[in-house]
Amino acid sequence: MNATIASRLEALRNQMKINGIYATVIPQIDPHQSEYIAAHWQVRRFLSGFTGSAGDLVVTLDKALLWTDSRYFIQAARQLDGTEITLMKDGLAETPSIAQWLATNVPSGQYVGIDGMLFSHVAFNNLAQTLDAHSIEVVTDFSPIDRIWTDRPPLPQDKIFIHDIKYAGQSAEDKISAIVDNLKARGLDAILISALDEIAWTLNIRGTDVSCNPVATSFLFISAKRSTLFIDPAKTDDATEAYLRNAGVVTAPYDSLLQFLESLAQQKVLVDEARTAERICSALGPNRRYGSSPIPMLKGCKNDIQVEGTRAAMERDGAALVKAFIEIENRLAAAEPTTEITVADILQKHRAAQPLYFDLSFDTIAGYAAHGAIVHYSATDETNATLQPSGLLLIDSGAQYLDGTTDITRTIALGTPTAQEKSDFTLVMKGHIALGTAIFPEGTRGAQLDALARQFLWKHGLSYLHGTGHGVGHFLNVHEGPQSIRLNENPTPLTPGMITSNEPGIYREGVHGIRCENLVLTVPAFSTEFGRFLKFETLTLFPFDRNLFDLSMMTPDEIRWVNEYHATVYARLAPHLSTDEQQWLRERTLPL
Amino acid sequence: MNATIASRLEALRNQMKINGIYATVIPQIDPHQSEYIAAHWQVRRFLSGFTGSAGDLVVTLDKALLWTDSRYFIQAARQLDGTEITLMKDGLAETPSIAQWLATNVPSGQYVGIDGMLFSHVAFNNLAQTLDAHSIEVVTDFSPIDRIWTDRPPLPQDKIFIHDIKYAGQSAEDKISAIVDNLKARGLDAILISALDEIAWTLNIRGTDVSCNPVATSFLFISAKRSTLFIDPAKTDDATEAYLRNAGVVTAPYDSLLQFLESLAQQKVLVDEARTAERICSALGPNRRYGSSPIPMLKGCKNDIQVEGTRAAMERDGAALVKAFIEIENRLAAAEPTTEITVADILQKHRAAQPLYFDLSFDTIAGYAAHGAIVHYSATDETNATLQPSGLLLIDSGAQYLDGTTDITRTIALGTPTAQEKSDFTLVMKGHIALGTAIFPEGTRGAQLDALARQFLWKHGLSYLHGTGHGVGHFLNVHEGPQSIRLNENPTPLTPGMITSNEPGIYREGVHGIRCENLVLTVPAFSTEFGRFLKFETLTLFPFDRNLFDLSMMTPDEIRWVNEYHATVYARLAPHLSTDEQQWLRERTLPL
Repeated sequence: MNATIASRLEALRNQMKINGIYATVIPQIDPHQSEYIAAHWQVRRFLSGFTGSAGDLVVTLDKALLWTDSRYFIQAARQLDGTEITLMKDGLAETPSIAQWLATNVPSGQYVGIDGMLFSHVAFNNLAQTLDAHSIEVVTDFSPIDRIWTDRPPLPQDKIFIHDIKYAGQSAEDKISAIVDNLKARGLDAILISALDEIAWTLNIRGTDVSCNPVATSFLFISAKRSTLFIDPAKTDDATEAYLRNAGVVTAPYDSLLQFLESLAQQKVLVDEARTAERICSALGPNRRYGSSPIPMLKGCKNDIQVEGTRAAMERDGAALVKAFIEIENRLAAAEPTTEITVADILQKHRAAQPLYFDLSFDTIAGYAAHGAIVHYSATDETNATLQPSGLLLIDSGAQYLDGTTDITRTIALGTPTAQEKSDFTLVMKGHIALGTAIFPEGTRGAQLDALARQFLWKHGLSYLHGTGHGVGHFLNVHEGPQSIRLNENPTPLTPGMITSNEPGIYREGVHGIRCENLVLTVPAFSTEFGRFLKFETLTLFPFDRNLFDLSMMTPDEIRWVNEYHATVYARLAPHLSTDEQQWLRERTLPL
Repeated sequence: MNATIASRLEALRNQMKINGIYATVIPQIDPHQSEYIAAHWQVRRFLSGFTGSAGDLVVTLDKALLWTDSRYFIQAARQLDGTEITLMKDGLAETPSIAQWLATNVPSGQYVGIDGMLFSHVAFNNLAQTLDAHSIEVVTDFSPIDRIWTDRPPLPQDKIFIHDIKYAGQSAEDKISAIVDNLKARGLDAILISALDEIAWTLNIRGTDVSCNPVATSFLFISAKRSTLFIDPAKTDDATEAYLRNAGVVTAPYDSLLQFLESLAQQKVLVDEARTAERICSALGPNRRYGSSPIPMLKGCKNDIQVEGTRAAMERDGAALVKAFIEIENRLAAAEPTTEITVADILQKHRAAQPLYFDLSFDTIAGYAAHGAIVHYSATDETNATLQPSGLLLIDSGAQYLDGTTDITRTIALGTPTAQEKSDFTLVMKGHIALGTAIFPEGTRGAQLDALARQFLWKHGLSYLHGTGHGVGHFLNVHEGPQSIRLNENPTPLTPGMITSNEPGIYREGVHGIRCENLVLTVPAFSTEFGRFLKFETLTLFPFDRNLFDLSMMTPDEIRWVNEYHATVYARLAPHLSTDEQQWLRERTLPL
């Protein structure tokens, strides 16, 4: 029995009783709808003990349940063991949504309490409409966490800093001007931006509030007249204040946002209803205009300087990986005990030694054997496995450099691979190659191309439930929109300048996990009488494990692609390597 | 100058002036939202002279424009030549929607008049909302066509007939009961069905009102208590009345629908807002509940008897095609003048000689050389081309049999094919094979698989703008939902029992058109620890032209698929053929 979690849930239920609340929903989110959130907002983790990056907790007076997706089924089951919390497997046909579950488990006439800063307008509306049909009311002012979490970390106080235009490629003034032009063309006066990466991109500022995501906690109000950054005064200094003023931006305290919005003169303020908190939307009152922010598309299509920077960062990142893999291989050859955490530490050490290194872009996933099948596995002291000379090691890792963000997954055989390991790996690679070499007309959406990466797995009765590709920021969040390559429909077309991951995989629970991931840049291919066509340029530079290919399953074109890619990897990385390192890389990039 | 069209538009404008209307929209539609419509509702054709199956006419006091899609760009340009009507190419980025065009070309304060029986609730709403923002009002009672079209054909009067349960596989009572169960589960009391194929399927009745579509003009109201078929009394006789009564259905006059709906007691009546006329929705008043009809999914998933019937129909259809092609080849060999219309007539003659033949399923498309590039070409006396011993002939044709509906496209070389003809054909076939052999998880949507059919064309800078696959009815409309395989998103998953076309193509304007079409049935493939997987069974039985394959562009798997398909075609069709015909087919199904 987990007494810590039990006492926290008891404290929460006491607050619920005091406030006349029958049930509450604790989402894994902050007021900015961030995917990765600062310690201050890790409320779901505090109350449940589950550390995954996705998952919402529901607590009623007598039940507690946690919804999370397939990436975390195994991890959540382990971490919730010993608590009263029931795991609800999101995405399975038999799992009700939170709203559906509440509708059938909360008595009519009772109240569901939520913190309206932690629900987008859309999320609140969906919940409230479903429950309203069952005469259950949702109140948005239930935020008792400070009374329960007595040593709650404060709001982030770290200083922001300026992302130099020599990396960003476009000034904050230019970006604000482009945003204002977009608003004017749509008959709007202003925009309220909650998303931290949109603010960081717009102003060319960065911060250290969220591990691996170089953003700064703030809200940004942009209008043709004046722009205001709502940010804790501790986070700016004279230099950054002067920089912002020069870009036409004044600052105001972070906690003055709602009051500012409530006192605005009549004007049309754009808010993205899916990415803006319900409390903010209601503070705007009749001034609010729901619509999509222009920034994800502007931010998603990288300019030439960002692309050049990312290409350079990929060379340094690939060189760091070569040095790291040599060190790991030497340890294994010398039979030095080497764990998943050792691997992550070695990768980080070599990346950190590279120029322009800033941070990791996410916690390294080094999953050995069965751990590789846990999609978002991160080794802890309890789970940390020691590598043996057999089985597969899946390594998904990346870094933030001032000139670009990396994200790469490689799966390597630690001994002589089995037929199933080779077959699974080759099917994943065939999909990776099919997607990476696709040529497609302008206007094509990721969901149309997703099956190219899955088709070979499907023919063998295999599949993976995660997306095939996510957008990647430039010295910004490693997961960003607006595009994606997934099973689900997403209306955003793949557009030149977008950087997207290409990462099919296969996960055999209890056996192994395989994922092969490069980042690709959408670029023009050619124009014909049938229109303009686009293709992908592979940005990531590191070899795939030559021992895992089953050549009998591959076409000549697929083999040629691997050989040409490996030749490129060698040519681009060699100038960054010593002679010994070059020799190591030469052997690993020989033709199949 | 086309004086006929000029005088018709003048008469329309006189009616517009009398009624204070500045602009009107004449859609190609009937009150049932049918794709193919009876002569009575061919108003757009009457007013514009354009005969295509898709396209809407807009007439203002001083302008006239016709919107149609890429299938008809060439045909419409030719047919509108000599009229004042401007062709608006739908689907191109530069072409505004009708609503957008009206918003910028109709002065504020003016009226747009439409016939509310010819606009779905959704279509009306979209138009009205866009125009309302520009202070332009849409009135729904402008239907002056009877005063302009003095010899307008009457409403269809043909008798309906019963589709025997030995073909339909399920009784009308059972179907009504399944529909009522669906309504009850959704908390609804009744449904008003406008779609003619939904009515025909539900009641197992057929008619001859619309060429090639064996439907009967009517509306159907189903409730747990009683069902009413609104149909012209001339269309039923004692036998069909008795049959309907026995199925729990009473009849009422077609034109009594609105009055019936307006006088309904309070109840929840489901109407599909996208497929029900605005006038009908407003007649239902507060009783209406918008939602999707359960019938397309029930109708789309064929039962075992329908599937067996379709397989049998495919054998007779393939045998008819063998006989027709032999006759056509003999004419060409004897240098007898043979035109596109000759080809269509010969195909129809041999199909009509088959047991259970009822009608064609659409007007045969026989497009020689450049005519093949006109996607929905239908030869007329003016365009009718004489076949020469060179170039490609595209034949898209099909029939209605009592036990199933067929739809097949073959492209054949009349001489020695050029390298480009072979390359284009082979790229189309590679896509056809990739889609036809796909295996995919339950829940997969057509839009996810569409790129499998296009990928090879895209790599060569080629594309086609039409869908890759449409649903096909059972002795019903050759185009039906709910599924599709297209560029556009459609949330309906491909489900066992669905019959869908697989018809990629390539169209070089002024040169040639190529399309390769089989119908495929969605069937279970296998189940694994990763879930249930589905695949396609090819239903259509007729060889592809062996002379058009460029083997150097094909993989061994692709060649094997063609050879195995041809072996199946021979084995299934031979029992229906004479010895000479078998010999002909044997040669055309030899391994590549």
